[in-house]
Amino acid sequence: MRYGPLVARLALDGSDGWNVHFRAVERKARGIDTLILTVGDSDFDSPPEAVAACKAALDAGETRYTPILGDPRLRAAVAERHARQTGRETSADQVVIAAGAQNALFSVVISLLGPGEEAIVPEPMYLTYPGTVATAGGVMVVVPSPAERAFHVDPADIEKAVTPNSRLLLIASPNNPTGAVLGRAEWQAIGEIARAHDLWLVSDEVYADLAYGDSPAYPAALPELAERTVVVSSLSKSHAMTGWRAGWSVSPNPELPRHLFRLAIANTYGSPQFVQDAALAALKAAPAALPALREAYARRRLEVAAAVNAIPGLSCRKPEGGMFVLVDVRQSGLGALEFANRLLDETGLALLPADGFGASATGHLRLNLGTPDAVLKDAMKRLAGFAATL
Amino acid sequence: MRYGPLVARLALDGSDGWNVHFRAVERKARGIDTLILTVGDSDFDSPPEAVAACKAALDAGETRYTPILGDPRLRAAVAERHARQTGRETSADQVVIAAGAQNALFSVVISLLGPGEEAIVPEPMYLTYPGTVATAGGVMVVVPSPAERAFHVDPADIEKAVTPNSRLLLIASPNNPTGAVLGRAEWQAIGEIARAHDLWLVSDEVYADLAYGDSPAYPAALPELAERTVVVSSLSKSHAMTGWRAGWSVSPNPELPRHLFRLAIANTYGSPQFVQDAALAALKAAPAALPALREAYARRRLEVAAAVNAIPGLSCRKPEGGMFVLVDVRQSGLGALEFANRLLDETGLALLPADGFGASATGHLRLNLGTPDAVLKDAMKRLAGFAATL
Repeated sequence: MRYGPLVARLALDGSDGWNVHFRAVERKARGIDTLILTVGDSDFDSPPEAVAACKAALDAGETRYTPILGDPRLRAAVAERHARQTGRETSADQVVIAAGAQNALFSVVISLLGPGEEAIVPEPMYLTYPGTVATAGGVMVVVPSPAERAFHVDPADIEKAVTPNSRLLLIASPNNPTGAVLGRAEWQAIGEIARAHDLWLVSDEVYADLAYGDSPAYPAALPELAERTVVVSSLSKSHAMTGWRAGWSVSPNPELPRHLFRLAIANTYGSPQFVQDAALAALKAAPAALPALREAYARRRLEVAAAVNAIPGLSCRKPEGGMFVLVDVRQSGLGALEFANRLLDETGLALLPADGFGASATGHLRLNLGTPDAVLKDAMKRLAGFAATL
Repeated sequence: MRYGPLVARLALDGSDGWNVHFRAVERKARGIDTLILTVGDSDFDSPPEAVAACKAALDAGETRYTPILGDPRLRAAVAERHARQTGRETSADQVVIAAGAQNALFSVVISLLGPGEEAIVPEPMYLTYPGTVATAGGVMVVVPSPAERAFHVDPADIEKAVTPNSRLLLIASPNNPTGAVLGRAEWQAIGEIARAHDLWLVSDEVYADLAYGDSPAYPAALPELAERTVVVSSLSKSHAMTGWRAGWSVSPNPELPRHLFRLAIANTYGSPQFVQDAALAALKAAPAALPALREAYARRRLEVAAAVNAIPGLSCRKPEGGMFVLVDVRQSGLGALEFANRLLDETGLALLPADGFGASATGHLRLNLGTPDAVLKDAMKRLAGFAATL
């Protein structure tokens, strides 16, 4: 049977790094001692307020169709949050509730980008971006965020990448996997480029509540970017709610949401009320990140960075945000994939080879901070032990 | 700002009929007496077993990421159901769990159909189909299912519609809105066409448990169609679980699921475990439809049909399946939209003008059988009263 051209476009999207993860999951299922620090899930539980709200909605029989763009109360709560972050008046009709930030990103990108049109994306980038751009039929143009620049993109490189086919910039800050948090001056420079070439900015802010320095710069707060920024976010990372599939987009005005309405009718057809009630309760209980989770990640990143830097031949930077540490194994003589495979086989520790996130992450392994302290300590021991054998 | 070409394609998708529904919802919210029989929701509650399983999963902390294609136990349960219906061996890796049947349909259609390629669809058809085909960039080619043929499509009309660009047939049986249930001989004729021209059949079976005659003919059971049929279905209609967004596709082999995996990573990224646990419990508790719901709908369709046919100037057919009755207002002298608007304004009863479902439904109004008996009786009185004023 013949498949459509989308299938071929998506098949180009390499994700070999995940094989280490899948092997680790299989190993563990077979009862073999394995520490899985690959995926970005959390050892913290979802807020009890969210669970209670979900159960209350179920008890109230809230199991029927919901408004396609989301519950008006949740849309209003997300709008308030956006207004607080950006200092800009935001109305609920700029907000579209989605089945997770990824679903929001998917819907926004395929609405803004057409076949052959270009999305400029700094790498390292989250592994779903290529598939998302491929679904739109768009062309991904990558610009580097080198380790030597602390994984920060140079706005001049973005400018150089612009062509008459450029339509949007897709940028995550804090970045996954590097944790890099762009500052106000960087966003201003990017904003000038976006304005000069009439580009959208799709701002992936799922880690925005997990920036560990001063309050992060929200691009939608800047006059250069306010009119052209679509924010996608969720509670997955900041509130330990990955499996709820509760995310959203915030558009500069209600026009894109009207288009997203038509797409949502064909794609997801609304989100469960009991999930939206849980999201609303989580936002009310903890308007920014869960404080305990945020504190733990902030502390763990320092402890892990110190432990890694004490291992001869390995090194890492202290991440500015997010929930990952990138371990630099370039001095070990092994590539990241080989390092990860041997580390798993010889010690049972699974880290994610980060090469797939982009050329600037080559030779790095991603480590998840959403891991209990005792397991992190054990992981550092295994990593040190393995490195000593090289 | 410029939008991508998808936005323009989706905007062509007319859905004026829904304005009657939205007006009715507003009216009711303002406290005005209104009976809303437009949407396909149910007066039955979701199975208590599903609610209990959902809460148990929440209590167990099942709130983290889940396998992208679905929980293996739920995939296996859907595979068993498919095997029972079709008499064909079915493995769990043919099954992909989705955020509702609509999400399954969306993912399947954009994977099978490319820009400019044609989907042949009998009308009347469900209102999301045009947007789904438009997302793929495909061309929808409609064939009629005239009221005079009891809303059954003539396979000869499908054959005539085939061109070298045809890629798939998209057919719902029982149909929404007509309730028409295709028989084995009709599927065989369709199967011969599909085989002769190497077409996929995308079979929308969300109402399959609500066929009121003999057991329905499942196209995937037929040798002509087994190798080329992708079934999409859910628990929304048969188990009163519309708001859970729990659906699936069943492919003829594990190849399409491998492609759907890449798409799901970019789009929905898995379904909540607590929703999947609820779906599994619902399937176990009631492998086919909820018996009480099915019996009530079967009875109500006869009562409503009798009541409508007793109103001078109105008529309707006894639906063969599904949860709707189509009221024929063509003898009233009013178009369906005008009839529906005046009916709402003068009596508070909201029915859905069915013209948007396709030319063969012109002059009909769709009435939802998932409505308490007392409300149905009241609705019939209002309808009769209004018709008497014409």
